[in-house]
Amino acid sequence: MLSQHSHYGPFCHDKQTSAVNFQATAVSPPSTAVVYDQHGPPDTVTRVTEIPPVEINENDVCVRMLAAPINPADINRIEGVYPVRPPVPSIGGWEGVGEIHSVGSAVVSLSPGDCVIHSAHLPGTWQTYVVEDQSLWYKIDKNTPIEYAATVSVNPLSALRMLEDFVALKSGDTIVQNGATSIVGQCVIQLARVRGIHSINIIRDKPGSDEVKEKLIKLGADKVFTESELEVKSVKSLLGDIPEPLLGLNCIGGNAATMVVKFLKQGGTMVTYGGMSKKPITISTTYFIFKDISLKGYWLQEKNLNKAEYRCSIDYLLALARAGRLKYEMEMVPFKDFHTALERAMGKQGSRKKQVIKF
Amino acid sequence: MLSQHSHYGPFCHDKQTSAVNFQATAVSPPSTAVVYDQHGPPDTVTRVTEIPPVEINENDVCVRMLAAPINPADINRIEGVYPVRPPVPSIGGWEGVGEIHSVGSAVVSLSPGDCVIHSAHLPGTWQTYVVEDQSLWYKIDKNTPIEYAATVSVNPLSALRMLEDFVALKSGDTIVQNGATSIVGQCVIQLARVRGIHSINIIRDKPGSDEVKEKLIKLGADKVFTESELEVKSVKSLLGDIPEPLLGLNCIGGNAATMVVKFLKQGGTMVTYGGMSKKPITISTTYFIFKDISLKGYWLQEKNLNKAEYRCSIDYLLALARAGRLKYEMEMVPFKDFHTALERAMGKQGSRKKQVIKF
Repeated sequence: MLSQHSHYGPFCHDKQTSAVNFQATAVSPPSTAVVYDQHGPPDTVTRVTEIPPVEINENDVCVRMLAAPINPADINRIEGVYPVRPPVPSIGGWEGVGEIHSVGSAVVSLSPGDCVIHSAHLPGTWQTYVVEDQSLWYKIDKNTPIEYAATVSVNPLSALRMLEDFVALKSGDTIVQNGATSIVGQCVIQLARVRGIHSINIIRDKPGSDEVKEKLIKLGADKVFTESELEVKSVKSLLGDIPEPLLGLNCIGGNAATMVVKFLKQGGTMVTYGGMSKKPITISTTYFIFKDISLKGYWLQEKNLNKAEYRCSIDYLLALARAGRLKYEMEMVPFKDFHTALERAMGKQGSRKKQVIKF
Repeated sequence: MLSQHSHYGPFCHDKQTSAVNFQATAVSPPSTAVVYDQHGPPDTVTRVTEIPPVEINENDVCVRMLAAPINPADINRIEGVYPVRPPVPSIGGWEGVGEIHSVGSAVVSLSPGDCVIHSAHLPGTWQTYVVEDQSLWYKIDKNTPIEYAATVSVNPLSALRMLEDFVALKSGDTIVQNGATSIVGQCVIQLARVRGIHSINIIRDKPGSDEVKEKLIKLGADKVFTESELEVKSVKSLLGDIPEPLLGLNCIGGNAATMVVKFLKQGGTMVTYGGMSKKPITISTTYFIFKDISLKGYWLQEKNLNKAEYRCSIDYLLALARAGRLKYEMEMVPFKDFHTALERAMGKQGSRKKQVIKF
């Protein structure tokens, strides 16, 4: 979706804009943007193009983007396979960080030079200048490493909200998750550890799993198992003296989801936030009836955190990132190499770190 | 499990009993009971036998049983396949109604002649006299039809609690269920109707489904579909002007459970209380993530209703039964024909109505 103020030329040249320009209203610099005119394979439907200046209304903030990641959901949105299908043409990218270039006349709480992150509820971060209403920007501490500021509002925020919003966990409790090597998975391990919560982690069977285990243990994981290691009569016998988990997180589906449920304590909850295997979740009715297991789902877009919760969560996560207590690997790529980063993010060059565009 | 006071001879002849008998304490009449000494096929491991009188302690109530049903869970318990495996030897039957024969010296709230139902949390109703602590008996209105009094505390109570305890439903809302012809299913239809709640009902494809539909519509069902009628692109197109359901109830599993989930509104909940098809529940991850569907389970045994809730629920249900607004079919069978009733309940004579033993 191109919002009223987005940098996409032809769609902003409405009568109002022309009239306001006539009155010499403030406008943004021209912006270089990743635009797609139709849904399809992102590497073929996206193009980098310059779009003309847009008007800065009294409540608008114009931000010079500094960095923005390529998230899997961004790719799905361009493909048109995401449940929310943005109208085309559109500019890609839903999260990112920038520095305020200029503000509208009614904006008092934000000033040029402030470092801000973009609400992940609207698209348009893959461009050099973004103009949006002040309510869509959130000021952060300038000392935050840029790559964490650019990526905090989707993966780490999801990890935090999933640990906080479904089960009342306390220090000494346990969670179990699959897809533990994902960025969300790594954040879950670290955020759990900060709160004194044990984590049981399930990873895929593939070469190098010993190094992966070591890496996750270093991050704070209590236990890491490959799926094949869980083909035992009772997975709970593998827990040792760690309490049975109250909360499970699933981003895989199929057998890896069943494993999470098998670990859960009576009355436990599994939250599904992804389906990487493209396989459904298959659970015996007895888990529901006799073990009182609940299955729920998490989708950041639908969380509708209120502003206070959002601020509190972002501040907490970025403070941990600044302290080096929340980390994950990313690859910064100059904007001029956008299509290379996109190919990597699409998995066309094998498994790569998260791609973050640096403007 | 044979409780301390059950009518099972050898296990009550402990020192205490002998001592108390010596002091001419009140005892029950001898009881004729359905006893099993080991788990196995109920029609081979159960025998009807006379057991000697047992002591009536000061807080005990001795009840002459009037009627008790044979529930599927009773059969599973005798088979030893139920998650809670009662120690053997044991007397069968977990619910039923009787008339108080005598009370212990400390019992003031119950009197001989009162009509009482038995807590479904302990076994032992398949016998002519039962002695249990006064807390395990609940006095009901004598004008209640005996077969409803005998069967209210498992199936109708489950139907009521599932409608009340998971989703806050209001008049005009909708629920969807499979296994709609079961007694729980029939109760759900009627209890929903009493509250002005629409019900969408799924039944099996089998000969006579038109008559079944007619019968359920007569009970108050808004819509009844066979599973094959739901093999359409969007089941929601079948709802007409009925709102999408917020609550789904599943006692089947497999495809019939998937159908329930397909009907649910965004944010809806499916509660599983049975798995008659013995097939697991298979749900795509997208239902959890993008439709915010929750799956939960219900098990009466674990509900642990407090006394006030229990009384309120039972009174409400029996008032509806007395008013003819809650009904379902049962077959009363004299106790002397217990093994015939048991065979019917085990499905050895094809599909039969619920068997209720009349003492």
